[in-house]
Amino acid sequence: MQQAALIYKELGIDTLQEYVAFLQEDCHVVRSEGIEAQTRVELVCNQRSIVATVHVIHSDLIACGEIGLSMSAQAALSAEPGEKIEISQAPALDSLSQMRAKIFGHRLERNAFDAIMKDISAGRYANIHIAAFLTAMAAHRANLQEVTDLTSSMVDVGEHLSWGTTPVADKHCVGGLPGNRTTPIVVAIVSACGLTMPKTSSRAITSPAGTADVVEVMTPVNLSVEDMKRVVREQGGCFVWGGSLALSPADDLLIRVARPLELDSDAQLVASVLSKKIAAGATHVVIDIPVGPTAKVRNREQANHLENVLTHVGFANGLNIRVIQSNGSAPVGRGIGPALEARDVLKVLRCEHDAPADLRERALRLAGELLEFCQTVPAGQGLEKATDVLDNKAAWSKFKAICQAQGGFKEPEVAPIQYVVHANQAGRIKTVDNRRLSRLAKLLGAPEAKTAGLDLHVNLNDHVESGQPLFTLHAQADGEMDYAKNYLDTHPLFLIEAV
Amino acid sequence: MQQAALIYKELGIDTLQEYVAFLQEDCHVVRSEGIEAQTRVELVCNQRSIVATVHVIHSDLIACGEIGLSMSAQAALSAEPGEKIEISQAPALDSLSQMRAKIFGHRLERNAFDAIMKDISAGRYANIHIAAFLTAMAAHRANLQEVTDLTSSMVDVGEHLSWGTTPVADKHCVGGLPGNRTTPIVVAIVSACGLTMPKTSSRAITSPAGTADVVEVMTPVNLSVEDMKRVVREQGGCFVWGGSLALSPADDLLIRVARPLELDSDAQLVASVLSKKIAAGATHVVIDIPVGPTAKVRNREQANHLENVLTHVGFANGLNIRVIQSNGSAPVGRGIGPALEARDVLKVLRCEHDAPADLRERALRLAGELLEFCQTVPAGQGLEKATDVLDNKAAWSKFKAICQAQGGFKEPEVAPIQYVVHANQAGRIKTVDNRRLSRLAKLLGAPEAKTAGLDLHVNLNDHVESGQPLFTLHAQADGEMDYAKNYLDTHPLFLIEAV
Repeated sequence: MQQAALIYKELGIDTLQEYVAFLQEDCHVVRSEGIEAQTRVELVCNQRSIVATVHVIHSDLIACGEIGLSMSAQAALSAEPGEKIEISQAPALDSLSQMRAKIFGHRLERNAFDAIMKDISAGRYANIHIAAFLTAMAAHRANLQEVTDLTSSMVDVGEHLSWGTTPVADKHCVGGLPGNRTTPIVVAIVSACGLTMPKTSSRAITSPAGTADVVEVMTPVNLSVEDMKRVVREQGGCFVWGGSLALSPADDLLIRVARPLELDSDAQLVASVLSKKIAAGATHVVIDIPVGPTAKVRNREQANHLENVLTHVGFANGLNIRVIQSNGSAPVGRGIGPALEARDVLKVLRCEHDAPADLRERALRLAGELLEFCQTVPAGQGLEKATDVLDNKAAWSKFKAICQAQGGFKEPEVAPIQYVVHANQAGRIKTVDNRRLSRLAKLLGAPEAKTAGLDLHVNLNDHVESGQPLFTLHAQADGEMDYAKNYLDTHPLFLIEAV
Repeated sequence: MQQAALIYKELGIDTLQEYVAFLQEDCHVVRSEGIEAQTRVELVCNQRSIVATVHVIHSDLIACGEIGLSMSAQAALSAEPGEKIEISQAPALDSLSQMRAKIFGHRLERNAFDAIMKDISAGRYANIHIAAFLTAMAAHRANLQEVTDLTSSMVDVGEHLSWGTTPVADKHCVGGLPGNRTTPIVVAIVSACGLTMPKTSSRAITSPAGTADVVEVMTPVNLSVEDMKRVVREQGGCFVWGGSLALSPADDLLIRVARPLELDSDAQLVASVLSKKIAAGATHVVIDIPVGPTAKVRNREQANHLENVLTHVGFANGLNIRVIQSNGSAPVGRGIGPALEARDVLKVLRCEHDAPADLRERALRLAGELLEFCQTVPAGQGLEKATDVLDNKAAWSKFKAICQAQGGFKEPEVAPIQYVVHANQAGRIKTVDNRRLSRLAKLLGAPEAKTAGLDLHVNLNDHVESGQPLFTLHAQADGEMDYAKNYLDTHPLFLIEAV
């Protein structure tokens, strides 16, 4: 039976990471292979192979003999318009039987996780299969051995960086608070103290800014592995976007499905965080768990359990973990949005008099813990050392040097359109709605519009007078500013309680 | 904030039942609402409302201010090109928190199932949410009370037919065997005996023919509820396609996700079957469970458990259930495909000398059970009565009368292109691959091409001589015949064992 091939036509349809193939209903190949809407097909092009879900076209978008691809599928195959793409029914996946065993309550062994993670990272699972896997893992609370095995399997299907030295420091914050941009400061401090800290960060997925988006305002973050290694060799630290490094690629696919399911299981969270750290070559990781009523982790009991699993699974995978529980009740710093958060970071690094104290304190605490944990300084002297290095501008010099090595430093720009919102009554700021804060910053254009976002002039528990400025909206276009103002009319950020 | 509206543009993209909205990346409304790829949006048009998943268009398929829809979404909204469609972020679904409670092992109450089924039937769940629900139900083996409640909830979200009489007979076969088209024969026999049997059937989803596809070769099956009621009033029985009647609509959506997950839980199967029967107004249902190594139910133990759950949950919902376990090792009848199966049905009804004996026997057994179960005849006399009514042509007269009432009877046509496949060795037919049988019939064009399919001349355990005809391929187009022959070259249907 001859291999069926179709000609690629570009449609420009973004389905996020879900691979979709668009096929014409009357196409002979389609009919002969028994392909229908939602059929899973294997596509081969340029020696690459993916599995995609079929949508059938009943119009002239696609001709017989042509195939369209979602942008993610096009990228995975590196397909160019006019190229031939071979198509066949996707083979049955053996690992699905292990996934089903998990659903029915069996404990999975390491080789089962290996098979499942291999198929997921190769894009062979449909989103419904990933949803079933995540649900089964949450339903039958995975034990420590399973989380350990899952973590190892996630590491093994991706790239693994190694640094030829020890310790290699890293940090992570579970369930970020708006504006909590400590990473660039911590990297600058600890690498100024001689530690190796090859930091990789993510871009925003649903938030108004990820660490990579913020740092990119000041220096390039899209480094190759070779460039990243050179920067770390020269400077000890770096701030690089992890997205193109293929560290724990299964994790990215799991997260895209877990988020809309709002399915936070400790097992999945721990495997996600630790697999990325192990793949990045870290040996000593400080993990910050902000605890608060509107944070991801709501109370101390939950935080203690998470700390326990993180520490055990890290240890079983040869990773040293130190967990810090911090206050997670309020946004950190003043800016929300890439350029505004970069401004806050720079104020702290430059020790300016109006640097946000909360951001400075959080960064110093984390850096101090890392210095002690990696035995750069004796126990009890970490905070003092970190404070010294920040206050004597060694961290600021190091930050500039790293930026220089990554391709140069530039100052963040400021949005051309600004609008100040004032208090309509006197009182105490009783609550801050972090979800609305994020939504508003995104309406203003963040993270694509780099200078867009919010600048907070007050924070939780502050006393304000009627007419006092509460925050300033920053936008790059009038339309976005208008939408943000409309949104604010019906969705106030602060609840002010008269005193 | 003004309501955002976009203009509908037809794209003709079939995603099966998944609702998808295609939006232009630069569209102001899209940006202001914070809509991205995979965002769930609420769409309103013609006083109807659905929730759809967004795919973002980075080309000129869709202009700013326009919106494309998958064909299922278009149909649900009855949207015409040029019409305005209002769009907003989909509201959070309260029932998802109950779905998550199920994931974490809580027993669900009736009102929780009500909320979940209401949201699913309204199309508010993404496929990943449905996958999570099905997985959670399978993971924490639902108890009888939960299956009972789930069944009631599935009934309540759809239409409910009532017939003003009792008993109302129905039948069902769990996990069909190829060619097992007993339904039209059973309906003819029992309604000829005066019983009320308002039968609704499905079309093929992944098989080469559903009962509705087969009956449609002989008479119209797309009846309105009013026409269906008239036919039943006049004739006692009918054979109608259930798809447009909205009986247990949540079930259809659950099945579309359960099938690619290959997640067969007894709970879901029972709720699916019984909800359709209750919604159709049945009071007495005979359920056939074919048991065999390649059937859906593999062994007697599995069949006994399923029988137990069916009977209990039926009783709790006021439905009388009688289960028959039958031999599920071989295809039934000779034809596979709509017209070929209709031919077999007609041979049995007309008592022709070459009518397939297995199909006749299965239909008689089921009809006999129904007659006894509904107390039309005393216990032990059902089979005799059914045989009488079939042999004296009363069932055939009733069949024609029902067809006449549904819009007229016509003889099945015969495919213009046929090809006979012969045995390449002598021996005994040791195995029949039912999956390949279905695949081959679909390659030949079934069920869209009504006369396409296979005509089997031998069956399991038959002794054949070398060169003896095994089966005939039927097609309406040369291309489809060629593909089927190619497929057969590498995928034999029968294993012939030399004796």
